[in-house]
Amino acid sequence: MVSPRAPEPRSIESLLEDLGIQLPTAPTPFGSYVEALQVGSLLYLSGMLPVVDHKPAYVGALGLELDLDAGRDAARIAALGALAAAKDFLGTLNRIKRVVRLGVFMVTSGSPINQPAVADGASDLFRDVFGAENVAVRSVIGVASLPLGVPIELEIIFELKE
Amino acid sequence: MVSPRAPEPRSIESLLEDLGIQLPTAPTPFGSYVEALQVGSLLYLSGMLPVVDHKPAYVGALGLELDLDAGRDAARIAALGALAAAKDFLGTLNRIKRVVRLGVFMVTSGSPINQPAVADGASDLFRDVFGAENVAVRSVIGVASLPLGVPIELEIIFELKE
Amino acid sequence: MVSPRAPEPRSIESLLEDLGIQLPTAPTPFGSYVEALQVGSLLYLSGMLPVVDHKPAYVGALGLELDLDAGRDAARIAALGALAAAKDFLGTLNRIKRVVRLGVFMVTSGSPINQPAVADGASDLFRDVFGAENVAVRSVIGVASLPLGVPIELEIIFELKE
Repeated sequence: MVSPRAPEPRSIESLLEDLGIQLPTAPTPFGSYVEALQVGSLLYLSGMLPVVDHKPAYVGALGLELDLDAGRDAARIAALGALAAAKDFLGTLNRIKRVVRLGVFMVTSGSPINQPAVADGASDLFRDVFGAENVAVRSVIGVASLPLGVPIELEIIFELKE
Repeated sequence: MVSPRAPEPRSIESLLEDLGIQLPTAPTPFGSYVEALQVGSLLYLSGMLPVVDHKPAYVGALGLELDLDAGRDAARIAALGALAAAKDFLGTLNRIKRVVRLGVFMVTSGSPINQPAVADGASDLFRDVFGAENVAVRSVIGVASLPLGVPIELEIIFELKE
Repeated sequence: MVSPRAPEPRSIESLLEDLGIQLPTAPTPFGSYVEALQVGSLLYLSGMLPVVDHKPAYVGALGLELDLDAGRDAARIAALGALAAAKDFLGTLNRIKRVVRLGVFMVTSGSPINQPAVADGASDLFRDVFGAENVAVRSVIGVASLPLGVPIELEIIFELKE
């Protein structure tokens, strides 16, 4: 909880503004699930896709229809969706301490692709927002397909401040 | 813990009976692991397959040998196995509050398939059992293959009641 | 915390020595993330690859370039990397109670492979180190590709002693 008398030294929201980042509309479910859910001090998110207004921003496989830059951008868009989902659930991003775990699933096919560099599209955004001392553990995995034909899906657990 | 003097308003077991659902035999490991494990208020399950009596109920890829209806049914069978595994570990399903996280891995190949609709085979069952206010966060991921050649695997974390 | 006055009955380090196991150098990140991170009594690790000195010990797909024995060995090497990463973070392995969750992602292609037997390359090592009463829950998933072209990636959560 943010006490009304203890002003944050720097709000995540004002930091996003300084970084020129505008959050998208929070994602909404494609089935019988919720986008975010809190257990204790952890906020679990549903798999975040590079989706804007419920429509895929990218479709295709990395190394085939999409290159490394497209992959990085898709990862960044999915990460922005995660921030929007968390803000929608919590009311404010200032309650978030850091990302605990970041799972990056990417559709790969054809030419091999620098998977860690693609994943950094999400990791770099979270580092800029939550600080270099708060980066997550990460898994990167090349998969066969993802919902809606998108190339990237992120699994995210946030840790909340006490 | 369920106090013997505080009767549950509605037991999960009697709800399952009303829904016409009979739980299968609890799954048993195919290697050096356990099917369920508790840490604090969370119950982690091993990857749940659509297996009945240690044998696959479905074999093949979605979009190739198996269609959407088969996928949904496979997801439901794996979800029933999860309930059986949880009951086997806890003694009763009444200690479960909800599913926290549902990961749905499905083997896809050939024609694209409505992955969220397949995953709802598991999500809808859990919604019916634990209530619409207790649905989980969810990730859906299309993979290359799964153990025993099955089309679906579920990763599940349950939250237990205090 | 290990109290200096309460000697452990058997240290994990001396057990490793008895098993003839020498830990490799702890892995280092390939991007904007950390290898290990603690939340409460859980230690989350990044995806562990069969990497020695930042280079892949195996490259290829199981069932194509690599057989079951290579897969088991790759899983074991990744598991040793996990122990090295945990020791690097904690200072000692004696603070670890057990593995809670083991996710085994393996690149499969060509001939079907006994996926649970491959995964046991990691599970058997952890059973030998932490005891048969402390084995984890496990998911095994066949994927399209993994970073650096390796055949195996492990997702691991350890539980720490109070």
